[in-house]
Amino acid sequence: MKRVVMERCGAPAEVIRIEEAPEPRDPGPHEALVELSISPIHPSDLLTIMGMYAAETGPLPRVPGKEGVGKVLSVGNLVRHIKPGDLTPLLLSNDGVWQQRQVLPAEDLLALPPGGDIRQYAMGFVNPATALLMLREVPEPSMGEWVIQNAANSSVGQYLIQLAKRSGIRTINVVRREGLSAALHNLGADAVLVDGPDLPQRAARVTGGAKVKLAIDAVSGDASARLAACLAPGGLLLNYGMMSGKNLQVSPAHLIGGGIVVKGFWLPPALARIGTGGRAGVFGELIPLVVAGALKAEVEATYPLDRVKDALAHASRSERKGKILLENST
Amino acid sequence: MKRVVMERCGAPAEVIRIEEAPEPRDPGPHEALVELSISPIHPSDLLTIMGMYAAETGPLPRVPGKEGVGKVLSVGNLVRHIKPGDLTPLLLSNDGVWQQRQVLPAEDLLALPPGGDIRQYAMGFVNPATALLMLREVPEPSMGEWVIQNAANSSVGQYLIQLAKRSGIRTINVVRREGLSAALHNLGADAVLVDGPDLPQRAARVTGGAKVKLAIDAVSGDASARLAACLAPGGLLLNYGMMSGKNLQVSPAHLIGGGIVVKGFWLPPALARIGTGGRAGVFGELIPLVVAGALKAEVEATYPLDRVKDALAHASRSERKGKILLENST
Repeated sequence: MKRVVMERCGAPAEVIRIEEAPEPRDPGPHEALVELSISPIHPSDLLTIMGMYAAETGPLPRVPGKEGVGKVLSVGNLVRHIKPGDLTPLLLSNDGVWQQRQVLPAEDLLALPPGGDIRQYAMGFVNPATALLMLREVPEPSMGEWVIQNAANSSVGQYLIQLAKRSGIRTINVVRREGLSAALHNLGADAVLVDGPDLPQRAARVTGGAKVKLAIDAVSGDASARLAACLAPGGLLLNYGMMSGKNLQVSPAHLIGGGIVVKGFWLPPALARIGTGGRAGVFGELIPLVVAGALKAEVEATYPLDRVKDALAHASRSERKGKILLENST
Repeated sequence: MKRVVMERCGAPAEVIRIEEAPEPRDPGPHEALVELSISPIHPSDLLTIMGMYAAETGPLPRVPGKEGVGKVLSVGNLVRHIKPGDLTPLLLSNDGVWQQRQVLPAEDLLALPPGGDIRQYAMGFVNPATALLMLREVPEPSMGEWVIQNAANSSVGQYLIQLAKRSGIRTINVVRREGLSAALHNLGADAVLVDGPDLPQRAARVTGGAKVKLAIDAVSGDASARLAACLAPGGLLLNYGMMSGKNLQVSPAHLIGGGIVVKGFWLPPALARIGTGGRAGVFGELIPLVVAGALKAEVEATYPLDRVKDALAHASRSERKGKILLENST
């Protein structure tokens, strides 16, 4: 079988290769053998490969890939909740998704309802859960309240628009270029603004001066400072990325006089904080929405697993319309 | 009598003047007539004059000055806790200290013990209380734990060293130039480091890898990012100034992966949060230390009230050894 391997940390084109590997052993009593169907390339995958991810990278060489959807091929004799042929999410906290087949603990798998869009299943947890839990980092904004986010056309941004809309939370969506407004309004965006020096004034016109308690920032650099300037006193600037490649900036006046708080958001510790029950609850909220097609993100291109280098190069481009997926054509 | 007036917000040399004003009326039953003795020029005074302070400036023209020490000249017939001749702190939340005489509510005044250093009395609350309450913004670091601060040679920085020392908290004190180490060690500093790109590595050598939970930042700009890099996971970067004139910077990696939180500190809301009893407690802790000379800040120069422009120009210089004071030579 084939697997994707990173030899060391560095530029994806240089450190990634496809290799032949032995087929996995048979599953133990509590395990399952699964076959990868589709996996998205997340920004966190790129950062991991480049050695810039927040968590330590494990021993090298290793198989990247944090999320995907797969098919159950066989299960151990004590496994009851999944059966061969089932589709299951693949969520590996220590990477390893990008290989054709592997044996996993069955307790980490579950049977997805058939009939949905398998590409949406493949990216149906990491980004949606990020969006959902970020919206809950403040006492949850109630009906009609405003949240502002930048990188609104990212996958997380798209999920956040849809999840906010379902909760009656209104969103100001900041993007870096024209031409995205219609697509984001279609997802449920209340306002779409192109970033710029007068963002705070334009955001205030959108809200009519209503307080914005939560600003969600994936860009960093001076974009963070503009987002913070849109917040009401005491508001939270929640950062989950640095698309600009720069340090987050915020005006001390907003921290000192405005009482703004700046925090980071990272899914693994956020999931750890809510515990097993909380995670099951998040899963239980998101999966039916993904299955029903009520929660989705745009896909720009799908590559076969052995074109992973092309896929990674494509995923590294900043102006995309959607996610890059890897497909295992068995 | 004389008073200092700011006509509008702007450069101190242009917007500040000394004017003759009528003597104040007699105090009412619950009031006192006080005469200014000495007042420090705080960075917040300069920011207020320049229109850059976090709070709204009140109606103009107005008398600046947030803190000082004065002498009680007369009291209303229902005032018992102070008497003519007493020294009292002058703490005006809406400014107004820089005038020779004024009538104030007696409940805002208290009799300071005689015999102390009146220059230390004059600056004995705002900066010490700032230092004390900042140290308590995290679950108070316990005996032997480390706190890191920059602008360590500022008045707040000097008070923080002394207050930390008294609590058994160890301090890493970051300064921007050589030559301050002996003076800060004399105040009780455990370590003094000149800021630079390798600050986190040098700080880690000082602590032997012990966790730093609190970093106190008055500089902003990239100095903030270096301070944040010294923090243990989950630590607090507490900003109370922007001596660099730049936005605060912090690496998203420290926010996301390190769980660092960034907040601002501002004394007025911090005092409001702890209420009247809390404020009395802070006063009760600080005044005996100031009176005993156990809590002090350096003074670089003292100017008569009518040389306020020279004093403000001096206070605006970045490389000072201590505070600039205004003295009312009656």
